[in-house]
Amino acid sequence: MNFTIRAATLEDCKDVSRMIKELAEYEKISHQMKTTERDLEQDGFSKNPFFQGIIAEVPEHLKSRDGHTKVGYSLYFYSYSSFKGRAVYMEDLYVMPEFRGNGIGKALMAKVSKRGLDAGCSQLNFTVMNWNKSSLDFYRKQGCLDVTSDLGYHCMRCEDDALEHLAQREL
Amino acid sequence: MNFTIRAATLEDCKDVSRMIKELAEYEKISHQMKTTERDLEQDGFSKNPFFQGIIAEVPEHLKSRDGHTKVGYSLYFYSYSSFKGRAVYMEDLYVMPEFRGNGIGKALMAKVSKRGLDAGCSQLNFTVMNWNKSSLDFYRKQGCLDVTSDLGYHCMRCEDDALEHLAQREL
Repeated sequence: MNFTIRAATLEDCKDVSRMIKELAEYEKISHQMKTTERDLEQDGFSKNPFFQGIIAEVPEHLKSRDGHTKVGYSLYFYSYSSFKGRAVYMEDLYVMPEFRGNGIGKALMAKVSKRGLDAGCSQLNFTVMNWNKSSLDFYRKQGCLDVTSDLGYHCMRCEDDALEHLAQREL
Repeated sequence: MNFTIRAATLEDCKDVSRMIKELAEYEKISHQMKTTERDLEQDGFSKNPFFQGIIAEVPEHLKSRDGHTKVGYSLYFYSYSSFKGRAVYMEDLYVMPEFRGNGIGKALMAKVSKRGLDAGCSQLNFTVMNWNKSSLDFYRKQGCLDVTSDLGYHCMRCEDDALEHLAQREL
């Protein structure tokens, strides 16, 4: 399939926001989604951006049933491993269902990997839900390690009231 | 116990590197440690740093058996959740064994939380090893959620040859 992969711009925030909603519906966590198109504009495209984006786009004649030409995205940011040094974290990798199986996901992930390597990173990290077998299989096939199953890493989170409460203990 | 919590500076890299080594020995993964004091200086204290650091320090008369006054540290960086927006990631939280139980870990974590909230973050994320029951208990007690056990998140990683291989598929 004919598609292009490129860095996301401010003008892509509307489509990225739409696709985050689609992903949230797929993962049955729409009720948890708080980010808006405006948040993405502010957080990704101001002076010290919190993330970078990559867009997958198809030509007009291949557009989706709903009329979209931006059919996939990835959000990533630079991170750090105290043992291994510079790393890149892939927050999302999404391709609209009707465009899957064409190598678009792999191309998005390749671009994120290339950006990481170019910045001196030796690791790409991300999370997957345990019920998402097709994604887990896909990533394993790309040579990825499941550090939860294989090494015992647990992801932890502190948010909302618990986070406020913790911060109040600051010296 | 009398201690102070402050932002890490370039001059702290030697002690941070020493404590990362101690942590690696505790986690029995010293053979995986690649970062040096020089890496920390370059990656944390150049123009676009990959991480921020926090140091816990005791007065001279309370120094460790080995003569150290810098007795704990945390490394963190800003990250992003496509659902929840701005987030902070705590890469490490470490207190030297002989100084544990004095609230130093909690104070380091509180400082990271405060920094996150000040930057508009609503989430603090980190990982813990499943065999590290005392840490898991400590974090649960602070109101943290184990998103691996409770929600099924798996941490994934792509590194070294697999990462190079992926990047070569870039369009």
